[in-house]
Amino acid sequence: MAERTDEQHAEKMKKKQAAHDRIMAGKTVEKGLLIVNTGKGKGKTTAALGMVVRMIGHGRKVGVVQFVKGAMTTGEKAVFDAFPDNVEFKAMGEGFTWNTQDRARDIALAREAWDEVKRMVADPAYDMVLADELNIVLRYDYLPLEEVLEVLTARAEMKHVVVTGRNAPQGLIDTADLVTEMTLVKHPFREQGVKAQTGIEF
Amino acid sequence: MAERTDEQHAEKMKKKQAAHDRIMAGKTVEKGLLIVNTGKGKGKTTAALGMVVRMIGHGRKVGVVQFVKGAMTTGEKAVFDAFPDNVEFKAMGEGFTWNTQDRARDIALAREAWDEVKRMVADPAYDMVLADELNIVLRYDYLPLEEVLEVLTARAEMKHVVVTGRNAPQGLIDTADLVTEMTLVKHPFREQGVKAQTGIEF
Repeated sequence: MAERTDEQHAEKMKKKQAAHDRIMAGKTVEKGLLIVNTGKGKGKTTAALGMVVRMIGHGRKVGVVQFVKGAMTTGEKAVFDAFPDNVEFKAMGEGFTWNTQDRARDIALAREAWDEVKRMVADPAYDMVLADELNIVLRYDYLPLEEVLEVLTARAEMKHVVVTGRNAPQGLIDTADLVTEMTLVKHPFREQGVKAQTGIEF
Repeated sequence: MAERTDEQHAEKMKKKQAAHDRIMAGKTVEKGLLIVNTGKGKGKTTAALGMVVRMIGHGRKVGVVQFVKGAMTTGEKAVFDAFPDNVEFKAMGEGFTWNTQDRARDIALAREAWDEVKRMVADPAYDMVLADELNIVLRYDYLPLEEVLEVLTARAEMKHVVVTGRNAPQGLIDTADLVTEMTLVKHPFREQGVKAQTGIEF
């Protein structure tokens, strides 16, 4: 692109803007979205957190249910605590399932967390509900996918729901409005022996 | 997985935990990471925001420089304002480059934003520096990649730097510790004519 003159650049940018404007003019629908962040890469939960922060910043109310990270001390918790009217944070899981080795208990915990999600989805006070790591619970068949899809599909028109976790089931992807796959290109854990660090992983 | 007995499940989870513990035992390095969020999908900036929130929650200090989104009113700004000691937020760009159609001005703006990044990278007070949408500026050759890599490589050992934007240059990927590509699986803009909404896009 270095050979392009300033005039050529201005011309190209003008076309780009016109194309952008044309596309945006067709975007008029406003609706609550079912958003899924999946994939083996990083950023599924952190991107959801970013959306929670944006909602908070706009004075909206968000409900957050963590399905499997309850045992972790998270930095986000401290920030949420500064906005008690805007965020309700429920850390339900007690560590990852491979730490418990008790399926009956895991299923009971998943059900308990799901009841919280259902309550928040049904309550008009919440503009967004984040079901963090729900995909993992679905992956292990701790909750029936049909029930989850039924509740999410029946939600109020303007309510956003965000679901995270690797291995999102196909039925959820089919039902969702916005699906992003986080793909690992390079990871310091694997390649450099770097451990989980403050602010990055928790 | 439905056919597995509780005993088989416990056995499998036990093995999984042992493998996890073995891997984690080898992870002892603590260091500042160069993190790149790229790809055409959503979540590049929002995942970076999530990391900023985690750092804030741990009482760390973060510098945020937005290269091309300065004109947007962002929800995150309101949240950052609640933690003035922990976040310095600089919205430097004046809208996307296709809105300006003026390369000389874009280059000057990019340089100004980059000077802020350099200052924050050099200042030990900042634990993390987020250069939001820097990749776009590099993509248009508004800043020399060599200079950017030189500054980022020479940073203090424990300093995290996060760079976002599609089309991350290969040189940056090669230098980075952690690279994630956000891939679009399904997008409501394209498929349903849904417009950018509060809390989701801004």
